[in-house]
Amino acid sequence: VLIVGELINSTRKSIADAITKKDALYIQEIARRQVESGAQIIDVNAATSECEVESIKWLVDTIQQAVEVPLCIDSPSAEALAAGLARCRRTAMVNSISAEQKRWSEILPVVKQYHPRVVALCMDDGGLPKTSADRLRIGGTLIEELAAAGVPADDIFLDPLVKPAGVNTGFGLEFLESTYILKKEYPQAHCICGLSNVSFGLPNRQLLNRTFMVMAMAAGMDAFILNPLDNKTMSLFHAAKLLTGQDEYCLDYINVVRSGGLEA
Amino acid sequence: VLIVGELINSTRKSIADAITKKDALYIQEIARRQVESGAQIIDVNAATSECEVESIKWLVDTIQQAVEVPLCIDSPSAEALAAGLARCRRTAMVNSISAEQKRWSEILPVVKQYHPRVVALCMDDGGLPKTSADRLRIGGTLIEELAAAGVPADDIFLDPLVKPAGVNTGFGLEFLESTYILKKEYPQAHCICGLSNVSFGLPNRQLLNRTFMVMAMAAGMDAFILNPLDNKTMSLFHAAKLLTGQDEYCLDYINVVRSGGLEA
Repeated sequence: VLIVGELINSTRKSIADAITKKDALYIQEIARRQVESGAQIIDVNAATSECEVESIKWLVDTIQQAVEVPLCIDSPSAEALAAGLARCRRTAMVNSISAEQKRWSEILPVVKQYHPRVVALCMDDGGLPKTSADRLRIGGTLIEELAAAGVPADDIFLDPLVKPAGVNTGFGLEFLESTYILKKEYPQAHCICGLSNVSFGLPNRQLLNRTFMVMAMAAGMDAFILNPLDNKTMSLFHAAKLLTGQDEYCLDYINVVRSGGLEA
Repeated sequence: VLIVGELINSTRKSIADAITKKDALYIQEIARRQVESGAQIIDVNAATSECEVESIKWLVDTIQQAVEVPLCIDSPSAEALAAGLARCRRTAMVNSISAEQKRWSEILPVVKQYHPRVVALCMDDGGLPKTSADRLRIGGTLIEELAAAGVPADDIFLDPLVKPAGVNTGFGLEFLESTYILKKEYPQAHCICGLSNVSFGLPNRQLLNRTFMVMAMAAGMDAFILNPLDNKTMSLFHAAKLLTGQDEYCLDYINVVRSGGLEA
């Protein structure tokens, strides 16, 4: 299961400040700590920055001086994605394309030029998916059309889109079922998601987010965009990895326990 | 989702001592705290006690003086089960019957006499179930034969039997799949399980147990035998209840958060 560290995002005030002040040491520290905690990819988002393209370039250069892992360039803007990808030294990821006509036509040329791994949101111009059938249909279209554009299935990360359980408590099982069906139908592709939408409007959000992560892992989710510095999240993550048969001989789990990295 | 509080069990030294010394106050305190923490049924097990039948009678009387909830009489002995059930003031539960010939023929008459809810282990004389197909077949037989003996499906709690992930890391998904299939095939019956076997032989057992509880809830498990005094377990339990659509309007969750009962 792949972990994309979500902390370098300009919607977080400390990151926005560091971007403004060009505080490379702070950004590098956050990058390094995420990798040490288990992130295999670092998300880079400057979408709320005043000059997004310049900020993305600076962030990519800054982070690559500190850590060796691939980056996930995260923006709604094709120009910012291209600017970030052009500077990535390793095969990167883009977050995200979707089946919305405008987004598809803008982002696809960038994907074709740089060959990143691709987060593909299961939504089209009809808005957020309403059922698991919606997600299956849109996911299928995305895989087919990305394949036609030369993107191998193994580089595609379908995002079934988490919706807030506080709005409708049925959204949780709907999402888990979607994940299970998508992985069954397209085993060669991956499923990825962020977690925080599930707890929107509710108290103790981290508790809900990390509980939902465990359920999503049992349903077959194989990548998460999350905060790897949350020790409770990572404790559950390592336990869930073992319990879903993804830690043969339990060696990863035992090693993390021995290093003192897990909650009791 | 039903919680059976597991703490009054003579394999725990403090309980064995309390039984020996007839320390009613200690037993009542443990019963009361389990109920306050969310247990809706209190398990009563004196199987390792020197005189099990006498101990069960004393425990049942003692606990019923302290709390109003039903009891789950837990023993391999038909005599102990009958002695406990005879003193229960509310509809009790027995833990457990199975499709093993000897256990079936000994326990069934007790079930027929006292009409308790019944925990039915998905195992027969072939030993522990090897696959989800085994569990489905044995579960089907148990439901059919219990029905023939007059036990309504709503009183049957099938236990798919948790096996240790440390022995085979595939056991976790095998169990979850079994739960999902059993609930789909027999929606009118319930599924129950203990958790601690999953972590047998591994470090940080509580972490694995409570992570597995979350996965089992997503798979449809509707009753657990667990330690309700573990606050981390109960925090995940309340979050998982909401996320699986079993807490309409999120009211239970918000109330427990407000009362300060959950981890952040």
